[in-house]
Amino acid sequence: MNPEEFRRFGHEVVDWIADYRARAAQHPVMSRVGPGQIRAELPASPPQAPEGFEAILDDLDRVVVPGLSHWQHPRFFGYFPSNGELSSVLGDYLSTGLGVLGLSWQSSPALTEIEETTTDWVRQMVGLSEAWSGVIQDTASSCTLVALVCAREKASGYSLAGAGLQGEEKPLVVYASAHSHSSVDKAALLAGFGRANVRVVATDAVHAMRADALDEAVRADRAAGRRPCAVVATTGTTTTTALDPLRAIAEVAHGQGLWLHVDAALAGSAMILPECRPLWDGIEGADSLVLNPHKWLGAAFDCSLYYVRDPQHLVRVMSTNPSYLRSAVDEKVRNLRDWGIPLGRRFRALKLWCLIREQGVSGLQARLRRDIGNARWLAAEVRTAPRWRVLAPVPLQTLCVRHEPPGLESESLDRHTLAWADRINRSGAAYLTPATLDGRWMVRVSIGALPTERRDVEELWAAMRREAESG
Amino acid sequence: MNPEEFRRFGHEVVDWIADYRARAAQHPVMSRVGPGQIRAELPASPPQAPEGFEAILDDLDRVVVPGLSHWQHPRFFGYFPSNGELSSVLGDYLSTGLGVLGLSWQSSPALTEIEETTTDWVRQMVGLSEAWSGVIQDTASSCTLVALVCAREKASGYSLAGAGLQGEEKPLVVYASAHSHSSVDKAALLAGFGRANVRVVATDAVHAMRADALDEAVRADRAAGRRPCAVVATTGTTTTTALDPLRAIAEVAHGQGLWLHVDAALAGSAMILPECRPLWDGIEGADSLVLNPHKWLGAAFDCSLYYVRDPQHLVRVMSTNPSYLRSAVDEKVRNLRDWGIPLGRRFRALKLWCLIREQGVSGLQARLRRDIGNARWLAAEVRTAPRWRVLAPVPLQTLCVRHEPPGLESESLDRHTLAWADRINRSGAAYLTPATLDGRWMVRVSIGALPTERRDVEELWAAMRREAESG
Repeated sequence: MNPEEFRRFGHEVVDWIADYRARAAQHPVMSRVGPGQIRAELPASPPQAPEGFEAILDDLDRVVVPGLSHWQHPRFFGYFPSNGELSSVLGDYLSTGLGVLGLSWQSSPALTEIEETTTDWVRQMVGLSEAWSGVIQDTASSCTLVALVCAREKASGYSLAGAGLQGEEKPLVVYASAHSHSSVDKAALLAGFGRANVRVVATDAVHAMRADALDEAVRADRAAGRRPCAVVATTGTTTTTALDPLRAIAEVAHGQGLWLHVDAALAGSAMILPECRPLWDGIEGADSLVLNPHKWLGAAFDCSLYYVRDPQHLVRVMSTNPSYLRSAVDEKVRNLRDWGIPLGRRFRALKLWCLIREQGVSGLQARLRRDIGNARWLAAEVRTAPRWRVLAPVPLQTLCVRHEPPGLESESLDRHTLAWADRINRSGAAYLTPATLDGRWMVRVSIGALPTERRDVEELWAAMRREAESG
Repeated sequence: MNPEEFRRFGHEVVDWIADYRARAAQHPVMSRVGPGQIRAELPASPPQAPEGFEAILDDLDRVVVPGLSHWQHPRFFGYFPSNGELSSVLGDYLSTGLGVLGLSWQSSPALTEIEETTTDWVRQMVGLSEAWSGVIQDTASSCTLVALVCAREKASGYSLAGAGLQGEEKPLVVYASAHSHSSVDKAALLAGFGRANVRVVATDAVHAMRADALDEAVRADRAAGRRPCAVVATTGTTTTTALDPLRAIAEVAHGQGLWLHVDAALAGSAMILPECRPLWDGIEGADSLVLNPHKWLGAAFDCSLYYVRDPQHLVRVMSTNPSYLRSAVDEKVRNLRDWGIPLGRRFRALKLWCLIREQGVSGLQARLRRDIGNARWLAAEVRTAPRWRVLAPVPLQTLCVRHEPPGLESESLDRHTLAWADRINRSGAAYLTPATLDGRWMVRVSIGALPTERRDVEELWAAMRREAESG
């Protein structure tokens, strides 16, 4: 495709996306296709001859759209908000169109330096001290894996330069709560710790890690000849946005020589609101943290920020320096390939740069305050409705709710819960993703898609009452 | 930014990119800025108030472009071709604009099923059997890490479910050649094997792994009480595009019970040409392989394909199944979160779908044949020029060359080599990345940027003669 064809079809693509976003509310939120249905629409083999871009544009409404669950829909309340703010989308368009790679600083200096600048902007926006240095990665899963590998290498005195984890006589142990994200467990297993060396620390009544239970678990392991290595605390757990007490956990971590990694993937964005910062009180005691601007904040996916207090340690664990990547200025610059797993690097900073500049900090703050206000409104409604319960505190934008009709309990209550959520999802009116809490199914309402206004939350609540109370 | 603003600024972005691509040849290929120069142009703190998108567009030519090394330039001969074909760029624009995520099949069925289809198209295009299943990941670094973790878990009988690598009494060992990519070493260290358990297998005169040396190394480790676990072979090494003999290596691997992972990150694309397939003869004997359509083939970065013969093993190693991600159809569909490290997943398949459909297999084949022809032409020119040498076979599109004036050897020859390459890079006429081969610096010429025609290679060769022979 030559640049003039790109200009023509690019305008069509932009128009199509503009229309898609403007009319998002017209679609059923959750896709209604069955397994294999989209695949059956596609040729089993690739075309030998060029088809022309018109053919692709023709397939968008016919093949692709029916197979989408619409994350940018005003009544998307599933999983978490993954907001692709349109200014950030354009930043990503610039990045993809430029097609430059950051293998090293030299391979496109602006890629590295705009990343340094924007990650430092976000540091300031969320109130972190100057002791933190940031880098953009793809997802929190990868950041947490990097964090646990760094913890492993610190505790083992850089075992990777010797026999690796295979040379350790006393096993290293990782700590997290049952409410930590599944990626924490996965990272510990991929890093080679083994499930037998991953401790599930007890939580309190509001699903936050108990620092005293952590301390006790660490002491028990040490007494048994094992070596406590890292604790992963969460600011805003996936199920309930529970807030692990970072100050107390950091105190245990420092006393016991543990690496403290904080998963603030969702809730980190809220720290651009000064009134939310007490929620991660103690964060300065952490060694590493992840927060995802590609969630609530609005950066187009993927844009996950990993901050560390000791970048030299990170680089020592991650660095490679083959001759084909060397340049004359390597001593004076950051080579971000040594700040994470992949060597190749998109110009991801552009989408963050465009988001922050076009929205301004004040614009981002206003939107997040709107969403928190909507969550508080819904929580108040649910709490006062007969037979409805809010099951956990609502510090941010996620509610855990259940409708509990008389006579239903345990499995029959679970069936009722899953059934009314499923009716809403199938109706297309809204999208909700249930989860289990304390062994029972409940429904998470995650508020904060870009176009979600109060009226959308009102419509959701009406649908919930209709589908649950008639069930 | 609302959809109507997006429409307006989106057209401007598309026009700007169309102009950038059309005029790429006007820029010096390698950025001329010094360390810190771009950062100094940017405000140290984020804007409180919205700036408007016009301000960003104004900064593109002033701040961003001078800080770019232009990978889409017709005389970019550095690293490797990272081609963002404009049809693929538009596929990525669709993905970013839609803003849907593939956390599970249900969270956007088309995302998963178009990925299944397009990875199977590429499988057919490169002549792999139906025994292979593919998934899109970000980079070869991540794919190779996944491969070595899968090898580790196979050899250790799923140690991750127990004490991890920490419970292994006899160390697991990984094998690769000194010409394997730096990411292989990095993956082995991140996976916990330890440098002491990574063997550098000897290579032959053309820098390919010696299968007999592999066999010998494996036997020596086994005799010493260690457990050979995996071998990483390369089809097209980074420095010289050397071709490890896969058939012989697979024979050793099968005889010795090793996992065979093949890194065909660059050269895999060439397998869409039937005449190139002998270069990876024996590939069906591998357990996993990576090939990167985001390199020579033209998919916008990032788009790395990971193929495995046993997806059940991959899923068993990588799977997580928290309640908040479950859906009613999980047993009937692929949940691609269990096929790699990150949970979150862009709709990357769109850029591959658009590339293959708009170009057609025949269009892609024609471009790759053009590049191979250009490499052969340059190799013939260099070979017949006095004092010039081609240092390794040229099976594909990469040449390793040196100008060897009389009286220069060892360090003085290195200084000469680095000096003339640097003069070309600073002139802006072309971009070359030197590397070491057999202990001496030489210059790699990696041909295959999208707009590179014969005349560009001719201009490069003229610049090489001018700068080296006058030096």
